[in-house]
Amino acid sequence: MSHHGHFIFELPTRIEFGSGSLANVAQRVIELGGNRVLIVTDEVLAAIGIVDRVTTVLDEAKIEHVMFTDVEPEPEAAGVHAGADLLMSSECDLVIAIGGGSVLDTGKSISLMSRNPGHIREYAGLGVPASSGVPVIAIPTTAGTGSEAAIWAVISEKAQQTKYGVGGPHMTADLALCDPDLSVSLPPRLTAVAGMDALAHALESYVNKATQPISEALSEKSMELVARSLREAVWGADTLAARSDMLLASTMAAAAFNPTRLGLAHALAMPLGAKAKIPHGDVISILLPEVMRFNVVGNPSKFAKIAEIFGERTSAMSQRRAADAGVGAVDQLVTDIAAPRHLGEYGVAPEHLQALAEEAMTSGNIAVNPRAATAADLVGIMRRCL
Amino acid sequence: MSHHGHFIFELPTRIEFGSGSLANVAQRVIELGGNRVLIVTDEVLAAIGIVDRVTTVLDEAKIEHVMFTDVEPEPEAAGVHAGADLLMSSECDLVIAIGGGSVLDTGKSISLMSRNPGHIREYAGLGVPASSGVPVIAIPTTAGTGSEAAIWAVISEKAQQTKYGVGGPHMTADLALCDPDLSVSLPPRLTAVAGMDALAHALESYVNKATQPISEALSEKSMELVARSLREAVWGADTLAARSDMLLASTMAAAAFNPTRLGLAHALAMPLGAKAKIPHGDVISILLPEVMRFNVVGNPSKFAKIAEIFGERTSAMSQRRAADAGVGAVDQLVTDIAAPRHLGEYGVAPEHLQALAEEAMTSGNIAVNPRAATAADLVGIMRRCL
Repeated sequence: MSHHGHFIFELPTRIEFGSGSLANVAQRVIELGGNRVLIVTDEVLAAIGIVDRVTTVLDEAKIEHVMFTDVEPEPEAAGVHAGADLLMSSECDLVIAIGGGSVLDTGKSISLMSRNPGHIREYAGLGVPASSGVPVIAIPTTAGTGSEAAIWAVISEKAQQTKYGVGGPHMTADLALCDPDLSVSLPPRLTAVAGMDALAHALESYVNKATQPISEALSEKSMELVARSLREAVWGADTLAARSDMLLASTMAAAAFNPTRLGLAHALAMPLGAKAKIPHGDVISILLPEVMRFNVVGNPSKFAKIAEIFGERTSAMSQRRAADAGVGAVDQLVTDIAAPRHLGEYGVAPEHLQALAEEAMTSGNIAVNPRAATAADLVGIMRRCL
Repeated sequence: MSHHGHFIFELPTRIEFGSGSLANVAQRVIELGGNRVLIVTDEVLAAIGIVDRVTTVLDEAKIEHVMFTDVEPEPEAAGVHAGADLLMSSECDLVIAIGGGSVLDTGKSISLMSRNPGHIREYAGLGVPASSGVPVIAIPTTAGTGSEAAIWAVISEKAQQTKYGVGGPHMTADLALCDPDLSVSLPPRLTAVAGMDALAHALESYVNKATQPISEALSEKSMELVARSLREAVWGADTLAARSDMLLASTMAAAAFNPTRLGLAHALAMPLGAKAKIPHGDVISILLPEVMRFNVVGNPSKFAKIAEIFGERTSAMSQRRAADAGVGAVDQLVTDIAAPRHLGEYGVAPEHLQALAEEAMTSGNIAVNPRAATAADLVGIMRRCL
């Protein structure tokens, strides 16, 4: 037993959780000092009436609001700046972002850029912005990115085929308002890949070199919830309980990985998203089992614990065999939820792999990965996922 | 499986943890905007040179400081006001509290009362103070109260035989600076009762009616650390690793119980502290096993999980028997660390119990206890601990 190394843990976002908690949104706006709200969402959520649930509560409380719906999947820097311009020209003083990770990342970024000069790409990295923006309430409608509790937003510039993370204490929501009612109608495929993203957050943080006991506790609970409920959230008939578990798993995983960063799956997801245009949850689903197979020898005791968390009977196994059982349990989960398996289906070909690997090697997630990795190792992982 | 109920989780205090982290204290003062520091501690810690470790670092950074050492065990309201007067008259703008729970509670209270009018007793309860005080850095030298991360301070007025909690988002440290080097020389008896207090925080939160999954995750990890390391922290030869586990257990338990409150052991500890003058850790050590025996039928699945956390072999047991094994494991721990067992040793007699029980019934911890309890039940628990 050795003593714990030096670490810092903080959770800058207040978490409010529960079925029906959306009804409290007007009260929370008032508590945060908001008078005029910019609602950040997308056209789909506006069209299917999800956003009406927010505006109805705001209207009843006579809180003025302005709508910004120009958010696409893997959100664009241009949209962030358009939203920040709208926030300032319409004199809004609080952002409510309601949607999936793209919407929440955009909402947090709009707030940030309303109070910091220049282009958002100048703030790529960790801890670059000097000022926080207006208060943000983040309301997730998917259970995966954890953006509502994360200190990161991921922004794309598709014309340049680039994608970067902007992170730090100013890239946070003040309140994560997590109402599982909002995710019950999400289709199986989106539920599956979002759930795999949540699992990857908890798991990559848990096995990496920067983890520490508070993050470990949150990761373990998050993985327990995924192991118990992701299959039912994807395929079940009446899924509120399973949705509730998954939303909680997603939010807790973000709280876990904020101080630790992640690992190879997330390092590779950035160029595969930017260059090969693979949606984030899809690429994570494809890569995670193979990344685990590569990493298992870097931290076998943690992978053995993952097996236990997934209900594998490990008591009669060696630690090394139990660690493999942890990989197998996640692999089985990917099969069971019919998540994607092959990069080739998205047009990735062998000749693309070297450039993708080299770009992934620039990620801050490489240094914390439990096993030292070279560009050649990343090529190998991607090749086995073709 | 049912979905999770409504809950709020927040952690207002940043946690910095690790052997040697005290060396960062000057940098943290500067980051928090402090120019002139009030150091709150007690005569013993000043005499044995623990406080010199802080002043040396501050002197090197040329940060001015003023010392306040008038803190006694189970701290007095009068001391809080004397400290707040000194803070204001000496124009300090940041508090460093270094010590056990009494010192940290005093330091947080001094900060609070430097920016709120009236007497601290007017703020008893949860969420009464309107303003936060100057920034506070809390440096624990014991592993038990968790005051460094808690939203509560417990203040006594011994002449009136009263003791009350003042809690809420303004009764927090900005930074919990947790350096296990500071607790290595704590004697076995104090280590034992402080450790039992940390365990009671994690455990009473874990089994109570207000708990929720984020607190549960933190409580489980905290109890794991206590189960692994309290005996070694008390009796071991080279205890830094065990001290590190216990300090982390204590800090994490506070993060867990902040949003949930506690249970009967803590409800009873207030009058037994105020009227019978039993030190807090002693009364918790005495009561916890008997409170668990009373509560076990209120939440058998959680008590069975406690048995698992303490390493009991429960796989062949019924849940009900496993729950009893959880109680037995904690009872064994109290024996192993030679913590106190009997209220009678502190002068408590049968004729005192009714009044003590009636005062305990006014505690906010009663309503969340996993089994409904009457004053007669509390009398019974105390009688079995005489």
